[in-house]
Formats: sequence, structure tokens, C-alpha cells
Amino acid sequence: MRLFDFARAPNPRRVRMFLAEKRLDIPKVPVNLYRMEQLSPAFLAINPGGTVPVLETDDGTYIAESLAICLYLERLHPEPSLFGKSPRAEALTVMWTRIVESEGLDAVAEVLRNLSPGFRNHVLPGPVPYPQLPALVERGYRRVAQFFDRIEQQLARHAHLAGDDLSFADLSLLAAVDFAGWVDVRATDGRPALARWYGRVAERPSAGA
Amino acid sequence: MRLFDFARAPNPRRVRMFLAEKRLDIPKVPVNLYRMEQLSPAFLAINPGGTVPVLETDDGTYIAESLAICLYLERLHPEPSLFGKSPRAEALTVMWTRIVESEGLDAVAEVLRNLSPGFRNHVLPGPVPYPQLPALVERGYRRVAQFFDRIEQQLARHAHLAGDDLSFADLSLLAAVDFAGWVDVRATDGRPALARWYGRVAERPSAGA
Repeated sequence: MRLFDFARAPNPRRVRMFLAEKRLDIPKVPVNLYRMEQLSPAFLAINPGGTVPVLETDDGTYIAESLAICLYLERLHPEPSLFGKSPRAEALTVMWTRIVESEGLDAVAEVLRNLSPGFRNHVLPGPVPYPQLPALVERGYRRVAQFFDRIEQQLARHAHLAGDDLSFADLSLLAAVDFAGWVDVRATDGRPALARWYGRVAERPSAGA
Repeated sequence: MRLFDFARAPNPRRVRMFLAEKRLDIPKVPVNLYRMEQLSPAFLAINPGGTVPVLETDDGTYIAESLAICLYLERLHPEPSLFGKSPRAEALTVMWTRIVESEGLDAVAEVLRNLSPGFRNHVLPGPVPYPQLPALVERGYRRVAQFFDRIEQQLARHAHLAGDDLSFADLSLLAAVDFAGWVDVRATDGRPALARWYGRVAERPSAGA
């Protein structure tokens, strides 16, 4: 098994945190996004979507999408559970992971990719170039604030995103909070429940993964 | 158990198709999106994201996100399997479902919501208004074409999206193909593998759900 990885990117990071929580040691294959290696013909043959992370399984299957990778690893290595131990807990973990992806990580990416010169012709992942749209920077910042306000409501009532226990949704949220820092959003400012949660989750050894 | 539903929308539709394939009959609670009922205080208390579908479980838990809902129902009613019978098959089903969501359904929605007068202050789901951006209509059409081209490559090599067997990813793709018709994209034109797949999957009784 191998993980196609890039140290700086938020999606590979939440998979590495998941591996650390599970105490799984999987060899990493670096794909340098700064050098656009994810768009090389060799990598696009592995993942036509041109994204990392990708897990290569022992039978040579390539699995893209962080949620798919982590659910696969959860099946193979159920302990410690990071998707909960009941259908209900699993459903809430998947639900909150999807919310973090589409409302959080995607919104931060909308700001960053429409703002930073490094993404000038590269506003969306993958091989097709899309131009930057300055209006999406403003929209993205509003979406990011809306997302963290929603999270604050949830964490004011629950110790973790999907309920009582740490789950993959929390690892995804930690990646989103730190990713927001790239566009100078301090998500924990003025959000005491999120700040308390962050204090606990960011202290775990897995946060350094 | 109850499903908060809207007959015309693509995400509730793929969940209804899933229920039909499983031969599950769950009471529906209509939420009329044309009348903005998803943004009423009563519904936002159920799902602050302001989206359908939402599953209310027998213990009163509200599960949003189509993927979370269907994975939950798969655990409770494993037969016939729509997420595959191995960790590998499940991972590929989740992966392709995520690709259909973020590259297909979201791209069609980007066109429709930035184009149609009915979405003028409602470009993204949920309670916060965002203005239409004409540039996103053009971008959305390019994304839709790119998505179906990627799908064509996959279906040229496999009978179904995640491999040999019908899965929830196929039901999601059927919803995306028909949703693309709303913005006058005939996805099957010039894509023979997708057209053959569509001919088979659209003939299933579940497609009428």
C-alpha cells in the first residue's frame, strides 16, 4: 500500500492525521503540487482528476477522495474507530465530513485559488485551466465565515463534530481551520466553542502529521 | 423513519432511487423548494444547511447529505448491496459518488443557479444570499462537459461507474445526466459508452422514483 501525498495540502493532511490516529505507517509517494506534478501524464494515469491524496492498495487499485480512502482504511483497521461504532455514528461522521468539505475546505480553496498568483490559471483542481474571478474571493470569504458560524453552533452543543467522540470529521475540520489561516482567517476568533475544540484536537500528536 | 423530500430536485431523487432499488418504503415529508420552505425557521431547525434530502431516523436523529443517508440505509438493509460487498468496492462507490457530486451535480447547479431568474439571490444552497455571477454560467458549462468526458472514459472500460455492479454512484450519475438536461446539456450525445449505460440504467423501475 502507498499514499500519493503532498505535505502542504489540506486533504492529504487529514488522511495523514487519520493514519496517525490509527497508528498505521504507509509509505508516501510525494507529488509536488508546487511543480504541478499532479498534472503530469504519469500521475493523471493514476488519477485523471489530478488530485492528491490517492491510495494505491495492495491489489493495485487507486482510490482517490479522502473520504473514500479513510472509509477503506477504517474497514481494514477498525480500531480505534474514527467513523463511530454504529450506523448512526457513521452517518453523522460522513454527513459532517461532507459539510466540512463542501462548505469549509471548498470555500477556503475558492478564496485562495482566486486570489493567489500561483493559481492564476488553475482555479479548480485538475487538468483544465479556469481563470481567476475576483468576485469569488469576496464570496469565498463570506462562505468561510458562514461555515465556521455553523460549526460554532454545533460545537457549542457537542464535544466533537459528529457527537461525543473524535471522528474523521474532526480531523477534516482541523485541516480546514488551519487551511483558513492561509487566507488570514482566524476561525477561532470570536468562536469560543470552536476555540475550545481546537485547543483539544490540535494538541493531539496526529495534528503534526 | 421519514424522508424530507422534494420531487423535482436531483439529490432527493437519487435517494428515492436508492430506496426503490432496496424496496424500502419510507414516508416522505414534502419540502417545497419553489416556495423556499427549506429556509423556513422550522426546517432550518432540522437542517441548518437548508438542503433536502434529510432522513429522520426512528430515534429522532436528522441525517443530511445524500451519501450519509444512503450509507446509513445500506447498513440497516444490506441487500441488495448498492455500496459493494468488499472494502474495495465500497471505497470505489464512495469515490465515484464524490466525483459525481463535486464535478457533476455541483457543476450543473453552478450553471442553473447563476442563470435562472428563480435563483437570483440564491446561488448557493442555504440561508445566506449570494448574487448571480454570469461568468460562472460559462465556467459551469465547461465543467459539465469536462465531467461527462471523464465519465465516458470510465464507462468505456467498465459496465458501471464503480466497476462491474450497479451502485449508488450510478444512481447519482443518472440524477446528474437528467439534471444536466435542465440546462440543455444532452450528456449522452457524442458519448457512446455513457449512452449505452444510460439506456440500461434509465430503464430500471427505480429511475421513475
